[in-house]
Amino acid sequence: MRISELSAASGVPLPTVKYYLREGLLPAGERTARNQAEYGPEHLARLRLIRALVEVGRLSVADVHAVLAASDNPRLPLNDVLGAAHDAVTRRAAPNRGEPAWNDARALVLDMAKQRGWQVHEQHCAALEQAADAVAAVVATDMPELYPLIDVYFEAVEPMARREVEAVLSMGSEDQIVRGVVIGTVLGESLLNALRLLAQQSVSTELLEGGEAGEATGA
Amino acid sequence: MRISELSAASGVPLPTVKYYLREGLLPAGERTARNQAEYGPEHLARLRLIRALVEVGRLSVADVHAVLAASDNPRLPLNDVLGAAHDAVTRRAAPNRGEPAWNDARALVLDMAKQRGWQVHEQHCAALEQAADAVAAVVATDMPELYPLIDVYFEAVEPMARREVEAVLSMGSEDQIVRGVVIGTVLGESLLNALRLLAQQSVSTELLEGGEAGEATGA
Repeated sequence: MRISELSAASGVPLPTVKYYLREGLLPAGERTARNQAEYGPEHLARLRLIRALVEVGRLSVADVHAVLAASDNPRLPLNDVLGAAHDAVTRRAAPNRGEPAWNDARALVLDMAKQRGWQVHEQHCAALEQAADAVAAVVATDMPELYPLIDVYFEAVEPMARREVEAVLSMGSEDQIVRGVVIGTVLGESLLNALRLLAQQSVSTELLEGGEAGEATGA
Repeated sequence: MRISELSAASGVPLPTVKYYLREGLLPAGERTARNQAEYGPEHLARLRLIRALVEVGRLSVADVHAVLAASDNPRLPLNDVLGAAHDAVTRRAAPNRGEPAWNDARALVLDMAKQRGWQVHEQHCAALEQAADAVAAVVATDMPELYPLIDVYFEAVEPMARREVEAVLSMGSEDQIVRGVVIGTVLGESLLNALRLLAQQSVSTELLEGGEAGEATGA
């Protein structure tokens, strides 16, 4: 198909498609004339992937670049692709990293993970550091009522992560698995967060307004 | 305390504290001399809250403003404060909203929520729309292996949301509850996401490398 058809099929505006081509996010089409190139279904799939990462996953173009570069590299072990996807969604560090309160928070998270038998790569682990950022911030706001939720989150993510990794590993070819890791990490996070809010709204409606569906929602 | 002490106690740089004062995020101190004002513990608590929302929750200053304005309004029902906090973390909409595929995704999410007895406010529900964005994006990437995860996320958030809302409601005064909603929504999301990644790393290490702690992490 031509670039205008690629734009129409993907829903991505033509100037944006051209921008992705210039930035190297989207590989060039096959040149058929001086000013014309032909794009295939693999371009459409790639464009949909970029669109999902940018629009739903809210990644910057630079982050999409890093994630796609990792997933395009056939020699990179799967865990490193996962690492690149994780880095993209955990980009920003709180500036109090390394302070005593932050170190305490990191030690607490690490300890709770180890007690559950989790295998944590302690060095430069973006997820561990982001967890420490959040725990340190909760502690700094002085709301002890929220501390038990740390364990609630640990409890919730354990079976979830297992199902996620198993789903992605079931995808067959290495290529598919890598795409699954990227999509699953970024879009899964967005969906999980949205459903959490939806469930919170339901529970708070029930508890605050004594809604009729209360019995049906009992956990 | 003086503004320099406020800066030191909170870890927020002095120019940033002044910026928050100018933007009205932080209320003015009590003027004690022509060029001097006195700040109390409530200013410190507020500054820590702003810092957590900006640095860990990654909210923009405009979003922090909206959330704090909602939580400062004593006449606003608690569910509306929750709504403002939810809006702040679900800001950006995918541009395909309203297209048939997006409408299908929204209907699917709504249907699954209703089957679980959730009470959903269907009109202008930011969480429902973000969930539809993510589901539509997963469907567009054509990876049916990931579909069962939608149900996995529904399953995981149900008990979590109940514990979260109960924890916040246990905080006593209306003031504390409102602060708890804001903190819990924003920082809870950040922590949940980080722990999900940490658990994924552990499970994929176990499944890909056959790590020794495999038995201990069995879900």
